[in-house]
Amino acid sequence: MLDLPFLPFCVLLGGLGFVCVIFVSAWCQHWRGGFALDGSAQMFNWHPVLMVTGMVVLYGAAALVYRLPPAWSGPKLPWKVLHGTLAGTAFGLAVLGLAAVFRFHNDHGTPNMYSLHSWLGLATVLLFSCQWLAGFSAFLLPWAPVWLRALYKPVHIFFGSTILMLSMASCVSGINEKLFFSLKNGTTEYKRLPAEAVFANMLGLLILLFGVLVLGALARPSWKRPDADSSDSCQVPAPLR
Amino acid sequence: MLDLPFLPFCVLLGGLGFVCVIFVSAWCQHWRGGFALDGSAQMFNWHPVLMVTGMVVLYGAAALVYRLPPAWSGPKLPWKVLHGTLAGTAFGLAVLGLAAVFRFHNDHGTPNMYSLHSWLGLATVLLFSCQWLAGFSAFLLPWAPVWLRALYKPVHIFFGSTILMLSMASCVSGINEKLFFSLKNGTTEYKRLPAEAVFANMLGLLILLFGVLVLGALARPSWKRPDADSSDSCQVPAPLR
Repeated sequence: MLDLPFLPFCVLLGGLGFVCVIFVSAWCQHWRGGFALDGSAQMFNWHPVLMVTGMVVLYGAAALVYRLPPAWSGPKLPWKVLHGTLAGTAFGLAVLGLAAVFRFHNDHGTPNMYSLHSWLGLATVLLFSCQWLAGFSAFLLPWAPVWLRALYKPVHIFFGSTILMLSMASCVSGINEKLFFSLKNGTTEYKRLPAEAVFANMLGLLILLFGVLVLGALARPSWKRPDADSSDSCQVPAPLR
Repeated sequence: MLDLPFLPFCVLLGGLGFVCVIFVSAWCQHWRGGFALDGSAQMFNWHPVLMVTGMVVLYGAAALVYRLPPAWSGPKLPWKVLHGTLAGTAFGLAVLGLAAVFRFHNDHGTPNMYSLHSWLGLATVLLFSCQWLAGFSAFLLPWAPVWLRALYKPVHIFFGSTILMLSMASCVSGINEKLFFSLKNGTTEYKRLPAEAVFANMLGLLILLFGVLVLGALARPSWKRPDADSSDSCQVPAPLR
């Protein structure tokens, strides 16, 4: 396989993640009326921005922490703390993003949790909360036995990728849904493909590209920490083991 | 990691795939008016059934062929033919599924290719066509050199999983979109969560569960053909090598 170095890829991926955040913010600012905290449609706009930033871009960054070559040697603890902090921040943004859409629905008498997008999105965030708590308990708290860490590690890795895939599907269905809601009465219909539709469709494809690249980087054998397949997940510095 | 045997998992997965096909067919038959070939809404109904059957269930079956223990020894050629045939059949169903929706749109004066769902879905099927052709040329035709097969194999594996992920996101966005289209004037609105909405939302979650299980099975090291990481992708029977 072609030997692609991780760090230039990482810079490109960071740029793509930044473009995703800029695109979703520009969509909400330029075409959807901007941002507010008053339960209005401008409050809803925080929802896509926070979900994309948290559940896709920051989540992807958290997932790739152990692929950074400096994380391959020395004690694991600082990298675990970075991984957990990035994931925790992503989770915090997701919770704020959910609060924005629930508040908007409640203030407009719109039911919550009926669309497939909402079922999938909430299931994804709930899975993420279990993943974060289980990861924190097993890998950051000092009392989990080594055999439990070894048993849980592949499960954590599997759900790590799964949650990102579910986030990508949630984002695509959410953008699609929002465009059908917004581009009708009084505006150019979605089916006439106005500039907003092209822009937001492109946002959806960029999110998928970002997610697929993260999942590809996670799966690439030569970018894995050399001891990734061992059962050693203890944060005690090497000399003390 | 818990030692889960592949064959019982495979039977369960087959059952889940069957349930997905039954669910999407029952949705279109019971709530959406059944099937026809006349350009009507009943013609559209072939679209979800063929896409779920082809791009998710049959595609997943094709992807898992090399995980079957009988495929681990002896000549690879019969398994390659099975893999290519299942994938080719999946692709054929997807093309018919696209024909159904284009014909429906054209007969109703509805534009094609404007929603994010349609962009993503078509991109996924186009990627699949490239994947099938490249796989056929590199691994089934006898004249591809071994170094080219070795170079292309990880790319084929990466896009194999990627296309399944994109199919899952396409299905979720398509089901969500169809429910918003269908459950409005003259019916119980989607937001009131009628039985059809619950049923089709569940279909979306079942498709995701099926896809995630296939991707998990593909990633599981102990289920990989023992020589999976070697560059040997030649279909010449072992004694002749």
